[in-house]
Amino acid sequence: MIRAAVVGAAGYIGGEVLRLLLGHPKVEVAAAVSSRYPGKRVDGPHPNLRGTTDLAFCTEEQLDSYDVLFLATPHRATMKLLPRLAPKAKTVIDLSGDFRLRDAEEFARRYGAEHTRPDLLGEFTTGLPELAREQLAGADRIAAPGCMATAAILALTPLTDAGLIEPDVDVDARTGSSGSGATAGEANLHAERSGSMRLFATSGHRHEAEIAQACGVRPVMTATGVEAVRGVQTVCRTTLREGVTEADVRAAYRRRYADEPFVRVVAQRRGLYRLPEPKILLGSNFCDVGFAADGSGSRRLLAIAALDNLVKGGAGNAVQSLNVRMGWPERLGLEFPGLHPV
Amino acid sequence: MIRAAVVGAAGYIGGEVLRLLLGHPKVEVAAAVSSRYPGKRVDGPHPNLRGTTDLAFCTEEQLDSYDVLFLATPHRATMKLLPRLAPKAKTVIDLSGDFRLRDAEEFARRYGAEHTRPDLLGEFTTGLPELAREQLAGADRIAAPGCMATAAILALTPLTDAGLIEPDVDVDARTGSSGSGATAGEANLHAERSGSMRLFATSGHRHEAEIAQACGVRPVMTATGVEAVRGVQTVCRTTLREGVTEADVRAAYRRRYADEPFVRVVAQRRGLYRLPEPKILLGSNFCDVGFAADGSGSRRLLAIAALDNLVKGGAGNAVQSLNVRMGWPERLGLEFPGLHPV
Amino acid sequence: MIRAAVVGAAGYIGGEVLRLLLGHPKVEVAAAVSSRYPGKRVDGPHPNLRGTTDLAFCTEEQLDSYDVLFLATPHRATMKLLPRLAPKAKTVIDLSGDFRLRDAEEFARRYGAEHTRPDLLGEFTTGLPELAREQLAGADRIAAPGCMATAAILALTPLTDAGLIEPDVDVDARTGSSGSGATAGEANLHAERSGSMRLFATSGHRHEAEIAQACGVRPVMTATGVEAVRGVQTVCRTTLREGVTEADVRAAYRRRYADEPFVRVVAQRRGLYRLPEPKILLGSNFCDVGFAADGSGSRRLLAIAALDNLVKGGAGNAVQSLNVRMGWPERLGLEFPGLHPV
Amino acid sequence: MIRAAVVGAAGYIGGEVLRLLLGHPKVEVAAAVSSRYPGKRVDGPHPNLRGTTDLAFCTEEQLDSYDVLFLATPHRATMKLLPRLAPKAKTVIDLSGDFRLRDAEEFARRYGAEHTRPDLLGEFTTGLPELAREQLAGADRIAAPGCMATAAILALTPLTDAGLIEPDVDVDARTGSSGSGATAGEANLHAERSGSMRLFATSGHRHEAEIAQACGVRPVMTATGVEAVRGVQTVCRTTLREGVTEADVRAAYRRRYADEPFVRVVAQRRGLYRLPEPKILLGSNFCDVGFAADGSGSRRLLAIAALDNLVKGGAGNAVQSLNVRMGWPERLGLEFPGLHPV
Repeated sequence: MIRAAVVGAAGYIGGEVLRLLLGHPKVEVAAAVSSRYPGKRVDGPHPNLRGTTDLAFCTEEQLDSYDVLFLATPHRATMKLLPRLAPKAKTVIDLSGDFRLRDAEEFARRYGAEHTRPDLLGEFTTGLPELAREQLAGADRIAAPGCMATAAILALTPLTDAGLIEPDVDVDARTGSSGSGATAGEANLHAERSGSMRLFATSGHRHEAEIAQACGVRPVMTATGVEAVRGVQTVCRTTLREGVTEADVRAAYRRRYADEPFVRVVAQRRGLYRLPEPKILLGSNFCDVGFAADGSGSRRLLAIAALDNLVKGGAGNAVQSLNVRMGWPERLGLEFPGLHPV
Repeated sequence: MIRAAVVGAAGYIGGEVLRLLLGHPKVEVAAAVSSRYPGKRVDGPHPNLRGTTDLAFCTEEQLDSYDVLFLATPHRATMKLLPRLAPKAKTVIDLSGDFRLRDAEEFARRYGAEHTRPDLLGEFTTGLPELAREQLAGADRIAAPGCMATAAILALTPLTDAGLIEPDVDVDARTGSSGSGATAGEANLHAERSGSMRLFATSGHRHEAEIAQACGVRPVMTATGVEAVRGVQTVCRTTLREGVTEADVRAAYRRRYADEPFVRVVAQRRGLYRLPEPKILLGSNFCDVGFAADGSGSRRLLAIAALDNLVKGGAGNAVQSLNVRMGWPERLGLEFPGLHPV
Repeated sequence: MIRAAVVGAAGYIGGEVLRLLLGHPKVEVAAAVSSRYPGKRVDGPHPNLRGTTDLAFCTEEQLDSYDVLFLATPHRATMKLLPRLAPKAKTVIDLSGDFRLRDAEEFARRYGAEHTRPDLLGEFTTGLPELAREQLAGADRIAAPGCMATAAILALTPLTDAGLIEPDVDVDARTGSSGSGATAGEANLHAERSGSMRLFATSGHRHEAEIAQACGVRPVMTATGVEAVRGVQTVCRTTLREGVTEADVRAAYRRRYADEPFVRVVAQRRGLYRLPEPKILLGSNFCDVGFAADGSGSRRLLAIAALDNLVKGGAGNAVQSLNVRMGWPERLGLEFPGLHPV
Repeated sequence: MIRAAVVGAAGYIGGEVLRLLLGHPKVEVAAAVSSRYPGKRVDGPHPNLRGTTDLAFCTEEQLDSYDVLFLATPHRATMKLLPRLAPKAKTVIDLSGDFRLRDAEEFARRYGAEHTRPDLLGEFTTGLPELAREQLAGADRIAAPGCMATAAILALTPLTDAGLIEPDVDVDARTGSSGSGATAGEANLHAERSGSMRLFATSGHRHEAEIAQACGVRPVMTATGVEAVRGVQTVCRTTLREGVTEADVRAAYRRRYADEPFVRVVAQRRGLYRLPEPKILLGSNFCDVGFAADGSGSRRLLAIAALDNLVKGGAGNAVQSLNVRMGWPERLGLEFPGLHPV
């Protein structure tokens, strides 16, 4: 058993880290920090954890020393917290956006603020085992990627690794409301958000930079909020290189993900679930990826992925990275397969 | 054409008053007051009105004189506004809770504040034509009832008018999220409110007092937020008086509502919509009412109603009251029948 | 008053034609044909029409002679019905897909069946006043376009008319469940369809051919079912021709739709509803169109449209076409502006 | 490891049994019978199981011999299947309604058919460990109760066991769409069912008889379909016996469920989740129960429960019963706590 602390533990991502760690056979949740609810039970903001834990939130000052520290704190605040918190644990896994990009200028452009610790950016490994399993084995600074970025990266990687597509990619992301967090505002007011198809980003979304960095493509991303609480689907419009066939594509996906515990290739000819659908992934760490060539014989190819933004797009990915880091079986604590119907 | 002003015009009820008045052939919307958005176009917070009006919000100070003033201002604030605003119009129609109850003590108990103008309570007529059509014809102070109260009152009135039921009634209200207004908070955060069955009131709801006042029953009310933006359904559990039959009940409903333009008796033997269902009433001023006797021959009777809380449960009812007040055809500006499917 | 008959009147589109015609001041609904429910009241399958009409369905055989006939019958069946039914009315407005395409071979490719009356294809005018207002003025054979096609065409027309874009266009359509009609099947089972992001067409959708025919572009279309009953949004990914600026685009949209009663240009800098959103259009005949240039200065341009698939994407468009055909004010019977919140 | 077979394995309950057993450390799923999909992979109708199993459906004829047989077959069909299937396993757990009621006449009244094997009714133990843990330890014929009945029974049992309430109880059940199963029909068509508040049973629901049998009360039940796929909430309106206080009630709940692994008492003074809410229980085997006394000091008491109808209201309860039957830790394979937000 190792001892873990979670900072920012009252938010949606923090709560999901708690849920997964409380069910993890090799991790003890030793501390959950919340600046809003110090002293309160964690099952207040996370009512699904009732009966599972008696843990209460503590303050940052009450932290002592841990094997692993999960940061589920806001963008731009985390880079300021890190120097203070990092000494409290051997391994730090950051779920914010602050240490995902290796280039400080790109960070400034995307996050509208200068990076306060550009010197630390190079220390972080991307917390995505499918991309960086070997590096994660020895990593003590891990940055989990963004939810929509994770989906797009996993959809595109088989194609870019095998050199099958041209560099220009349109990434169309559809997302549930939980991605915007637990802070109430007009944008996530139920009466406004319910049943919407809200095109909230038409270009320049932050996750573009992560996709570019991971896949070496030139992505342009749109993002639409649709009716769901959890769930992200990315539809990437790509162009096959001259001479590449659908069979090449299928082979590349199969090969790339043959041994991956949490990526399923879903590209069937028929059935309601023949392509990746987020709703059957609620609570699960799976990312389903698939593809569809243009029936007319053009070089267009859709690369599609679906995941639960709080699990494989956040907390689950972080726990999977911990499992890799610790040399544990990768599925540990992440066995929930998702539900149907739901 | 008469000239109307709407105060509190940026909220959900205010917006619905605007929508209905802008489509009303005998009313000109001369002013829309919002303390939050003075100078801004009304189609900002009410995007459905784009192309329908170029009106901008003004401040209360900019008001001059109107034929009718609609108050869509908050509970407890309205009683303070009224003395200042009333002189600006011949007729005032209040949609807040402040002048619904005739008894100041009951108001204090239900709203947690002393009434500041108990002397004015007696001047108000209930803005529910089905109950008070004659009084409304000459009324210049009109208080539209609460959304859940309206539904329960219309479900119960045929029974209480005909003396068919015992006085103890359980009122079970189910409601969409728009009833809690346009102010964002944790309770109406999409991720929390979506798909919920939230029993937010188990007894003592304010609308109990309105039902008691209107129907002479002793209601106990529960209220549950279910997944919907608009829509209220009330299921009243009542006990038939000794000897009363289902045929008596059916006759009472038919008789009571035979000539009502906006109440439909819906109590069929089969079909998905055999009892009142709010979803087909979105945007409509109909209140559907129905009933179901216990098949086992007991004296239990369900009295059921459904409406759109922002229309027949608010703005539509207010406009219908205006139509009665002015001696106009009652359906004027309220012809939209609702949608199916939706 | 003219006399109208609706065939296929028990379906979702048929019901919407009935709703609109029953509220139309110059049309009398003289007959509603349903092969499933002959003799039954139309407010059975269309419960929103209770209290609005006492009409009952009749059979095709009972039809006599009308001024206008609306066909809301299935694809592939309508081309067989038409020769039999056309003599019963001066004007025929078809809402099926059978007479939308001018080219019989394209029809065969898209609908998987030979056209049985290719000779009649040339007689039909597209029932989209924004494209064909002048032709409609004298038209007696009118084919209303498909719901997703209508949205895409209205999004693209200002750009293609002004010659601003390259011919290759990706059309990404998102749609509610009512588009698949009133026939129950596994695909529209609530437990399966609810909350889904189902990519049901990845290329080759029928509506591609209508878009190509109307706009002269080469569209590739994807379609996703998202959680909604009504509502279509199309996001068209286009490429601006060399030298075209965002100001050119804005001017083209403004100019093209300056006098259109049912198209609103929605392309604002901020706000939850700054781009076209279907949910505020439920029940309304508006199509909102907008655009977004790529912030990075590339030549990419999104052209976006939203509508209610059963109204502007179907029945409303048909009634608007009738208004044009008859020389009536175009808004007649179509005044409902949509709701907010909803 | 024991060997299990599931009959009716392609339905929603059958799929949930498969999901739970596939994750159960002491059970091997040796056969899954489906008459509709023989030879097809189980992850076809149950796409959430992709990557979890390669199992294919077999026919009833292909069954050999198992330790336990789960019947997830339809009401009225199961009583005919049982004699044929029972010899194939030592232990049979039936999830249909056919062996829940001990009285054949009551069965006939509720299910509209004579029971074909009334002689077997007495052999069955109710598959609800909270009621029948001791009997289950030695049981080889187990009948899992209905989903709404389970909720109501768990809400009422602390009160009836302690003799705190009068026998007349109103049970108000609200339910998601998955309870009606995987067979498409007009009632569960997405466009009709979405956003509805459909009062589909006003009295005489079958589950009344189970509640009466288990709790010794006289229930009258109403049931409403609300927008959700999974989830049941029951609100029981009860009357406290003379002299019973809220403290007595609280003590009774605490005492009754102190050691129960899957029942949580949720009756707090504040918070969005202060009373049982089904949405945070998706996929979980918890049943949350709570209560609310009338603030006015009357003897009215609400007893409330929430659960996932396919888990604690079906498959989870069955697996928990198996755990008890086998003497295994009761939580085995049922550890998933539910999600928040969702």
